[in-house]
Order: sequence, then C-alpha cells, then structure tokens
Amino acid sequence: MKERLSIGVDIGGTSIKLAVVDSRGNIVHKWNIRTDTSEKGRNISSDINATITETINQLNMSPSDIEGIGIGVPGFINIESGFIYGAINIGWENYPLKDDLEARSGYPVMIDNDANLAALGEMWKGAGNQVSNLICITLGTGIGGGIILNGQILHGVNGMAGEIGHITSIMENGAPCNCGKTGCLETIASATGISRIAAEGIDCNPDSALSKVLKENGQITSEDVFTATNQGDEWANEVIRYISKHLGIAIANMSNVLNPSRIVIGGGVSRAGDQLMTPLKEVFSRFALPRVSQGAEFAVASLGNDAGVIGAARLIEIQSFER
Amino acid sequence: MKERLSIGVDIGGTSIKLAVVDSRGNIVHKWNIRTDTSEKGRNISSDINATITETINQLNMSPSDIEGIGIGVPGFINIESGFIYGAINIGWENYPLKDDLEARSGYPVMIDNDANLAALGEMWKGAGNQVSNLICITLGTGIGGGIILNGQILHGVNGMAGEIGHITSIMENGAPCNCGKTGCLETIASATGISRIAAEGIDCNPDSALSKVLKENGQITSEDVFTATNQGDEWANEVIRYISKHLGIAIANMSNVLNPSRIVIGGGVSRAGDQLMTPLKEVFSRFALPRVSQGAEFAVASLGNDAGVIGAARLIEIQSFER
Repeated sequence: MKERLSIGVDIGGTSIKLAVVDSRGNIVHKWNIRTDTSEKGRNISSDINATITETINQLNMSPSDIEGIGIGVPGFINIESGFIYGAINIGWENYPLKDDLEARSGYPVMIDNDANLAALGEMWKGAGNQVSNLICITLGTGIGGGIILNGQILHGVNGMAGEIGHITSIMENGAPCNCGKTGCLETIASATGISRIAAEGIDCNPDSALSKVLKENGQITSEDVFTATNQGDEWANEVIRYISKHLGIAIANMSNVLNPSRIVIGGGVSRAGDQLMTPLKEVFSRFALPRVSQGAEFAVASLGNDAGVIGAARLIEIQSFER
Repeated sequence: MKERLSIGVDIGGTSIKLAVVDSRGNIVHKWNIRTDTSEKGRNISSDINATITETINQLNMSPSDIEGIGIGVPGFINIESGFIYGAINIGWENYPLKDDLEARSGYPVMIDNDANLAALGEMWKGAGNQVSNLICITLGTGIGGGIILNGQILHGVNGMAGEIGHITSIMENGAPCNCGKTGCLETIASATGISRIAAEGIDCNPDSALSKVLKENGQITSEDVFTATNQGDEWANEVIRYISKHLGIAIANMSNVLNPSRIVIGGGVSRAGDQLMTPLKEVFSRFALPRVSQGAEFAVASLGNDAGVIGAARLIEIQSFER
C-alpha cells in the first residue's frame, strides 16, 4: 500500500514553513519560502502552490501521492469555509484562502489558527503524547494558546477560543496590551513582557547583572533574565517568581475549568526549562484544586518550529481517516 | 408511536427531586422525597427505586414506558462507570450508584454531576436555548459550574471540569474557601460571599440600611443587599459593584479561553435580575476580547429548580437517540 502524505504549511509574517508529512506524523521533507506581504498578501496563495508543485517534482513524487494541504494562519478564520477575516501580519483581510488555493492546486485545503495547529502537532507527535485533553501555551513575542478537548481543537462560537494571552491577570493599572485592554497575561509572561518588567525595575535594583546588560544593549531580553537567574541574580529571580506567579495562577484557573491531563509550554521562553517550569509548577499546584492538580502533567513543547507544519498536516490526516 | 419517557433525579442534601420527562424535555409529573443521609446514604438507592415504582403505578404507566433513569449528584463521579468517589452532603464514599440502581430497577441508569446537569437542562429547555457552547454558573450557597462544548458536557480528565467557583480571584489575603484555598470566586460572588462582604464592611458604613439589618437579624443576606441596592443604598451598591467586578472578570477570562455563545447565570443570587446582570455585563464587555464579547449572550437561568431533573432526563434521552 502506498504511503499517504500531506502537506503542512505554517504561515508567518516573515517566512512560510512547509513540510511533506507522512500518515504517522513524520516529516519527510521540509523547506521555507519568504512571505510576500506586499499587495495585502495577494501573491501568497500562488507562491504556496508554486513551491509545492516544484517540490513534489524535485522529490520525484507524483501529485497523487499528496492527500491535501493543511495550513496554519495567524489570524481570525472561519474554520469551515477557510475564509480569513483578518491576519494583520500577513496583510489578508476578508480573503477566501481555502477556495483560492483549492482552485489553484486541485487539492483539498484545510485551514486553522496557527496556535491551534501547534497544539494539535504537539498532541500528535510531541509533548502532548496523544492525550485527548490538553492546553498548549506558546510564550513568544506574544502568548498563543491552543486547546484540545476530547481530541478535537476547541474553536468556540466564532473561532476565538484559546486566547490565553488575553486573560486579565492584573485588574487595575496593568500594562497596556496590543489587544487594547490592560493587564493581559501577554503583557507579563511573554518574552516582551519579561523584558519590560526586568527593565522597569532596574532603577530599584542597580546592582543586578541586568543593569549592566541594559546599559550595554539598550534592552534586557527574556534570555538575559534566565541567564542572570542561573547566576543567582536576585532581581532576575524576582522577575521569574513574579511572572511564574501570574502564569501559574492563570493556568490553574483555566485548569479548574477545563481539567486537562497535560499542559504543554512552548515558544522561545520555554527554552528556559526548569528555571521556569519549577516555580510555575509550584504556583500551579497551590492554586489548582487538588484533583485538578493531580490530573495534570506539565511538559515543555518538544517539536519546536515543526509543531505548526505537523499540526497542519494532521488536519488533512484526520480528514483522510474519516473519509 | 408511544411517547418515550425518562426519569430525571436530582439528589440534594435535604431532598431528592424526581420527574417523569418526555422526549421533548417537558415535565409530565414531578415530586420530591426526603434524602436519607443516615448510614452513609445506603438507603437512598432503594428509596429512589421504591418511589419510582410507586409513582409509575400511581400514574397508570407501564414500567416499559420508561427508557431509563438519569441522576444528578453533588459530588465527584466516574461518569462512565457511574461510581461515586465522594458526595459529602449525601454521605456516599466509593459507592457504585449506577450498578446498584440498575440492579434494583432493571432500568439503564446514567449519572453526572448536578451542576453539569443543570447546564444540560438549561441548554435543552431553558435559557441555553439549544446553543452548543455554553457556560452555566449557579450562584447559590456556593458556586457551581457546568460547561457545554459542541453540545456535550465537558468533564475533563477526571471529572473536575467546570469548577468555576474555585477560580482564584484574589491572589493574596483572600477569604478562606471550603476547598482549602483562599480568594476563590466562591468566597466573593456566592450568596455566602455577598453576605460576608456586606457584613465585613458595615463598620465603615454605619449609615447604610444594611447596618440596621445586621443589628436586627444578626446577618445580612444577599437578598438584603439587593433590596438595599434597589433603595439606593450606597454601601449595598458598592458591594454589588465589587462582586460584579470579580465575577465579570472571571467570566471574561473563561470566555477568552472558551469563546461561548451563551452564559447562563442561575441560583438564588440570579433572582436579583438586572441589578446583578447590568453591572456584570459591563465588566464582562470591558475584560473580554471584542469578538468574544460580541459572540456571547447573557441570560438568567429560566428553569429554576427543575433544571437538574430535566438535565438528568436529557442524559437518557441522548442515549436513546444514539441507540
């Protein structure tokens, strides 16, 4: 029997990641192209179609070896119609991506939010380990969230489910968030939030190693904070305790409502490993109900940048399986 | 064709509510019996079986008219096996309710948590209006929660999903909660929480009408607070603003994660109607993302005490439909 293959696509503001993925979730081949955000992103669909056709040729595959194309998009999507209401970083507004790419390519196309597909990818082949109830939190420039319940992505009534970054963590006088609110978790526990908090407190902590970093580099990155923690820096430790507390309470509150079996932490900030995970788990177990805490296991995302394309391919794999 | 009927049972610490419910969710007949919590609740199952048999006779029904028995229990349950891990107010601990009652009655028995079944009842015949994504919050002595996603009750990995009352709303120095934590939403927005907050602030608000209530009755009930609000009492208004803020932020945070189409507020406190709902919706729309807020409609629970038995009967109706 011939191997079923799918194409997974993960569209970002700078580059588009693509992969040929087999039916067990293994990447057969992966590559990148540049995201052409000019003219409101109108060339992206033809770019994707062209690079897929070219790559299938290069790999000596037949077009019929491919079952379909799954795509992750950072934006608001009508999942059923594959219509993009808006994807600011890409330039799309009211754009019928699924219809357009299906017409060009002749393949079935399935589209979902990129954070949801990262969760689906981790569930299928990564730290999610195939559990059917998981929360996946990506701590990067912003905070992305994907929720899988009963093995399915939770979309909610209009595709907004999983907006974990916009949980309000500071009720009054929180920092302004890109969403227009203040005090969102994203303003605290994202890489950007950690940088801001570390820099804002530096005047009161002039002896911190981070003070020197700020003077030399004009900024403190989240990696700088974790490095300083490693070296026993008191202010860096305090920053980590602070962000762990806000993140841990938010995860505990969500878990008291969702009762997940696994909580996967990904994104650049997750590379801090135990420096983040140890205080985070402590806060979580203090604020989650005992049975909720017992039922939930933490894991660091293991697929890195591949989570998106693997999750995108999974959309097609699920469809094929159901046919 | 003969009408399909089910029995819905809602077990509380004081009384057991029962109803014969038709396949469209209408109550054909309802009645109560006392909950015999003696001997760790060991007589309850036979009491339920006896009263059902007796009622079927009285109504001149044939036992074969009944499809099965659905039961709501205030406790921790293994949904699939119908095994009660613990139901403190009833006395049950490690009790195989489903197996026991199926053996006694000969009917299929389905069991779920009472808050979940209130949500299911409201979705079927009440304020949930058959939407497939809803959050149901019961503000009574405590706070109960039931979540329906894609038309199904969310149970989570070990039956703990929906514990909305134990969302931490005050991070430090919150009031102690029955669960062992502090600062839970239940300590603020339950009837008990409202009473406590109103009484604790009375020394600083000696001119409030509630001050007189406290002196005369030795306590302030949540109804007293809403009555005083009606009369323009400033302290009572402040209490309502305070609890609306905590409740509204908790619901907004949940909604940013779940993106529900309807939020149903039930329980004794919900009888305050617009006095609670108006400030609550204001806070919600401030803290929910705009698209989340647009997608969600608030409603006051409409089935009152019948929600539980109707939801319990729904368990059987769903099963019958799937057979």
